[in-house]
Amino acid sequence: MRDLMLRALAGEHTERPPVWLMRQAGRYMPEYREIRSDMSFREAIRDPEVAERITMLPWRSFEPDGLVIYSDILTVLEPMGWSYEIRSGVGPVIDGPVEDPEDVREVELEFDVTEELGYVGEVVRRVSESEADAATIGFAGGPHTLASYVVGEPGDRDAIRAFRARHPEAYLDLLDAFTDVVRRYLEFQVEMGADVVQLFDTWAGLLPPAEHRDNLVPRHREILEGLDAPSIVFSRGSAGRLDALANSGSTCVSLDWTVDIDRARTELGSTPVQGNLDPSILLGDRETVRKRTREVIDAAGSRGHVLNLGHGVHRDTPVENVREFVDTAKDVER
Amino acid sequence: MRDLMLRALAGEHTERPPVWLMRQAGRYMPEYREIRSDMSFREAIRDPEVAERITMLPWRSFEPDGLVIYSDILTVLEPMGWSYEIRSGVGPVIDGPVEDPEDVREVELEFDVTEELGYVGEVVRRVSESEADAATIGFAGGPHTLASYVVGEPGDRDAIRAFRARHPEAYLDLLDAFTDVVRRYLEFQVEMGADVVQLFDTWAGLLPPAEHRDNLVPRHREILEGLDAPSIVFSRGSAGRLDALANSGSTCVSLDWTVDIDRARTELGSTPVQGNLDPSILLGDRETVRKRTREVIDAAGSRGHVLNLGHGVHRDTPVENVREFVDTAKDVER
Repeated sequence: MRDLMLRALAGEHTERPPVWLMRQAGRYMPEYREIRSDMSFREAIRDPEVAERITMLPWRSFEPDGLVIYSDILTVLEPMGWSYEIRSGVGPVIDGPVEDPEDVREVELEFDVTEELGYVGEVVRRVSESEADAATIGFAGGPHTLASYVVGEPGDRDAIRAFRARHPEAYLDLLDAFTDVVRRYLEFQVEMGADVVQLFDTWAGLLPPAEHRDNLVPRHREILEGLDAPSIVFSRGSAGRLDALANSGSTCVSLDWTVDIDRARTELGSTPVQGNLDPSILLGDRETVRKRTREVIDAAGSRGHVLNLGHGVHRDTPVENVREFVDTAKDVER
Repeated sequence: MRDLMLRALAGEHTERPPVWLMRQAGRYMPEYREIRSDMSFREAIRDPEVAERITMLPWRSFEPDGLVIYSDILTVLEPMGWSYEIRSGVGPVIDGPVEDPEDVREVELEFDVTEELGYVGEVVRRVSESEADAATIGFAGGPHTLASYVVGEPGDRDAIRAFRARHPEAYLDLLDAFTDVVRRYLEFQVEMGADVVQLFDTWAGLLPPAEHRDNLVPRHREILEGLDAPSIVFSRGSAGRLDALANSGSTCVSLDWTVDIDRARTELGSTPVQGNLDPSILLGDRETVRKRTREVIDAAGSRGHVLNLGHGVHRDTPVENVREFVDTAKDVER
């Protein structure tokens, strides 16, 4: 229910927690695997008709309260001058990654988001105009996370910190470039009908907390503060820097599974939270899924909580466990 | 200075922080690369004469206050029935990884540590009898971390959590097996002359904190409480579970770079701490190395602090930056 999601994000008491899952339209669904059997990920996200159909699959299966558009955090890379491919078992492989400050100066910023990324806006529009009673959720990658994908060898999560140690100014310039583009990109998604947007600065938790506060918080604020919609910010490994997420200009803090949600509540006060069940729990038996989900719901309390996993759904997850997760939220009465 | 290290681990005020680095004898040193040019890692750690020589290299270069023996957290795997190789760019590749509970029942526990791992004890003995005025530091992997290497595809850090969700009892049995072996292994290292031991449960930070408390803390205590030497416990990403590390039976908590050391101090009270400079800072310029190292020293305060990095030295680190890091500690007067 769209209204339930918006009320939770406004910090209100809700009769039950609204629920959705990161990566809820994905490989664990047979219908998804069938659609993808004859088209690449890149083709699927760039075809609004297909992307809409995929976005809506979870609605038909278990009616979550939010529908996150089927897309990718890396869509902004192409108009900025990087082509890339998703290689199985490796992840994104960038053509011409950033190696020195000169490469940062060549990043393209003068492009029209509505033109270059219009296909994403079209998916947002279609989903927001659908008959589903669910919030339409747009999203983008955060500046540090996007920077971490364009620097270094594929999958090397330390390379971005090496780059920032060797070239501290170029690193900040790279963050600025992504900040500018991501701000415009999320504004566009809101204009096209997104009820909520989530900023995935997933790898920000690998920075020392002081650098997160000094270098990311002001940029997150620049991205999120002017938005005409509630927003959610997510980083992995944020237990030592919840203050930085709460100060990021976002409405709600999304917690991964390495944070105690009750401690986070104490630290964050009235800031709404999202999360935070370990996605791997959904690989076990249904009874445990229900029990552990209930624990998250109970620990989070009834005000301003959006039930979600602590990260994306694992591709080997049984569909019935995703349904059990969603149903556990729907069975709450308070 | 050996005494300085032991006093800091006893929680005392020290005139300057004792200092050593995780992985301080490694690829960043030209002498190390020369020794390794005609022998494999496995050969080098199993030859006490070579392993002693490598362990002592940092002493000759910059006289740290602790000498961590040149070895590997995976040495225990072979007597337990797993052979493995270290594949470049991939990490450890296990022959016959654990796939189901049956595999756990086949783990070998009835072996004599002093016989099977005598070559490690011999390195400890040699280093502890050397002329260096430095503490001899032994070490072992923690139960969850060792389990994470024998389950799943190489480098897949999520596989162990999938296994524990599907086979919760077999997972605990696997932890028990490693607990038994690691306890005996660390006792042996202390008998052979280790002044201090460090338990690397590096990947424990990827568990939900409640599971860390329930399933790892009792096993860490079983390993560490009976030891006749001070101990240090290390996990990556521990900001949300410092209490679990402090309760692990260890003398000192080693912090990775994603934790604010001053906040950790507040949370941990008088428990000695080790750490926690981001290792990638040592890839930058010397002035920044000194400045950031000073910040760690100042934030940690003068009682019970062992200066170290938040993880192992990166292989591309300039030797002069490691020296600058050590010298920054030695230049402190308080």
